[in-house]
Amino acid sequence: MYVAVVGKGLVGAEFVDQLLSLPVPSNPFNIFSISSSKKTWIRPQGLVHTEWKKAFESSASDASDTVTLLKSTLGTEMETLVKAGHKVVLVDNTSSDTIAQLYPRFLSAGVNVITPNKKAFSSDLTLYEEILTAGMSSGAKFYNESTVGAGLPVISTLKDLVTTGDNVSKIEGVFSGTMSYIFNNFSTSSRNGPTFSSVVTKARELGYTEPHPADDLNGADVARKLTILSRFIPELLPLLPQGYISVDTKSLVPPALKNIATGDEFIQALPTFDDAMERLRTEALQEGKVLRYVGVIDVATQTIKASLEKYDVNHAFATSLGGSDNIIMFHTNRYGERPLIIQGAGAGAAVTAMGVLSDLLRFT
Amino acid sequence: MYVAVVGKGLVGAEFVDQLLSLPVPSNPFNIFSISSSKKTWIRPQGLVHTEWKKAFESSASDASDTVTLLKSTLGTEMETLVKAGHKVVLVDNTSSDTIAQLYPRFLSAGVNVITPNKKAFSSDLTLYEEILTAGMSSGAKFYNESTVGAGLPVISTLKDLVTTGDNVSKIEGVFSGTMSYIFNNFSTSSRNGPTFSSVVTKARELGYTEPHPADDLNGADVARKLTILSRFIPELLPLLPQGYISVDTKSLVPPALKNIATGDEFIQALPTFDDAMERLRTEALQEGKVLRYVGVIDVATQTIKASLEKYDVNHAFATSLGGSDNIIMFHTNRYGERPLIIQGAGAGAAVTAMGVLSDLLRFT
Repeated sequence: MYVAVVGKGLVGAEFVDQLLSLPVPSNPFNIFSISSSKKTWIRPQGLVHTEWKKAFESSASDASDTVTLLKSTLGTEMETLVKAGHKVVLVDNTSSDTIAQLYPRFLSAGVNVITPNKKAFSSDLTLYEEILTAGMSSGAKFYNESTVGAGLPVISTLKDLVTTGDNVSKIEGVFSGTMSYIFNNFSTSSRNGPTFSSVVTKARELGYTEPHPADDLNGADVARKLTILSRFIPELLPLLPQGYISVDTKSLVPPALKNIATGDEFIQALPTFDDAMERLRTEALQEGKVLRYVGVIDVATQTIKASLEKYDVNHAFATSLGGSDNIIMFHTNRYGERPLIIQGAGAGAAVTAMGVLSDLLRFT
Repeated sequence: MYVAVVGKGLVGAEFVDQLLSLPVPSNPFNIFSISSSKKTWIRPQGLVHTEWKKAFESSASDASDTVTLLKSTLGTEMETLVKAGHKVVLVDNTSSDTIAQLYPRFLSAGVNVITPNKKAFSSDLTLYEEILTAGMSSGAKFYNESTVGAGLPVISTLKDLVTTGDNVSKIEGVFSGTMSYIFNNFSTSSRNGPTFSSVVTKARELGYTEPHPADDLNGADVARKLTILSRFIPELLPLLPQGYISVDTKSLVPPALKNIATGDEFIQALPTFDDAMERLRTEALQEGKVLRYVGVIDVATQTIKASLEKYDVNHAFATSLGGSDNIIMFHTNRYGERPLIIQGAGAGAAVTAMGVLSDLLRFT
């Protein structure tokens, strides 16, 4: 099997390392191309196991833009391999919208696509439908387990529930590792706690937020994940005609800070708004509750929302979450009153790459 | 794809119903044979969707023993289909040891095997190794997701962790729905509670126990599940030379009741032993703990045990379990200090059949 890896960032590099570490006799994968944002390496004979990073850096490889290459040399190479009867997989470890636009083209040509890139599955419905159609026409597969919950088996579980005929009535969870960390620390069952801005600052220092924390606090990442999951639920398909499943998203970015350009300025200005968050926390605690930023897909009422909600101090979102855990509850007909729950780290290069590699291993 | 279903009990019948309910255009499966304990039906043209149970009951089908048929007519039919280039899957929904013994034969012949039957994977190592070898020689697959946690993605998650190169250091969980129900009700954070025998009696009335509750209380079911999981962990393979991975199993059957023949007599005699369980409960509570019957695989110390343990009232096994939930925690290198957790109903025909069907859908 031939694998082309696009994206050599944290996840991409970790993915190549994990793939090259598979036990050799059972490793049927030949990485024949790697692209960084700066250059692309095509080696139909496959990569040497050790020191691939150094070899890549020092090689005189094609420095054309990846998208251009995917449309020319690299694209042609993949298609040639498919025509020769090989299984070919494009692993897109970028978050590029432009590369996502190319998926239908490759799927049509019989190239399988695996990605943690949320763009193709949470943006315009036309692209999503083109992907489905292209895959069906050629038989090529696309897998995107790592787009929700990183290495946690969230999408595969939802697919299994739906394809085996269970009825999913509600999915509810903490889908953002960043939001999880922030509220696990900000809102606990004890009366006093750190200020909201201090928790966000610490999360940023620990590398849990995007460089600009507003990119987490605006809830867009959670909304994208809810969109991805919603599209697997047959009962929600009637909501699709607008081209998007509309997610009612509560942004935690104070309106006055909406247009602040840099993360540093944002962090400096945030304490001004601590009082407002403090009031919410106190109000929750007076009801015996904590605050959690959750995503909810309620199939019965057809509402999908990413928002700040209050949960009883005895609820699993209060008692069992810690660190930057994700937790996802599937309420279904077969599981009855007690949901199927999946919990664990939902971000980080190692677990995200593992999710991508698990998708690849489905081909074995 | 051709599917032969052996076993038409609760899980078997539910499996056939679920399979026949798959949307028709995307249902590539042709159930060409069904066996109950009384007779076998072979219909190479496939089953009619509706009313298959009635048709089965009223048909004049071969009443030979299933094992005999698997070795003759049915076996030959499966092998003929394989030779004709079809994908053939044997779905064993029994708990028969004799049928499990036949897996290597069919796997060698290219017949894929899917089963919730724990026997083949938790008994003699020779059989297990024959299964692995047979599958590797022909390329036929065997999947057994439902043997642990029913429809919960426990085995697939463990396989993904291991095959992608993560190091599993510990697996800890409540693996028996029966034991979960009993201890969730018997041992809570409040001082007073029902007697042990009354909880077991109620569990039996609700159908949560085997007809003879000693078959649950002896811990053997948990030990089997631990054996199945252990065999996926490379670091534990050195423990295998005895032919079994030895599971240190704590039975909750009072020694004096070990040889009681019927479930009814067992239930009648159980109250005599309530004091002993009551002492354990009180002792735990004095330490701020509850009792849970758990399975633990500790890779570092190479100990595998099924036993009654005490957990802090704030531990997830105390706070987040309810009903007859299973919960399984995977402690791994990549997940770090916070384990990957899977929780939900781990028994029942609907979710068990769903796990079996999910395994079958991997072939699409």
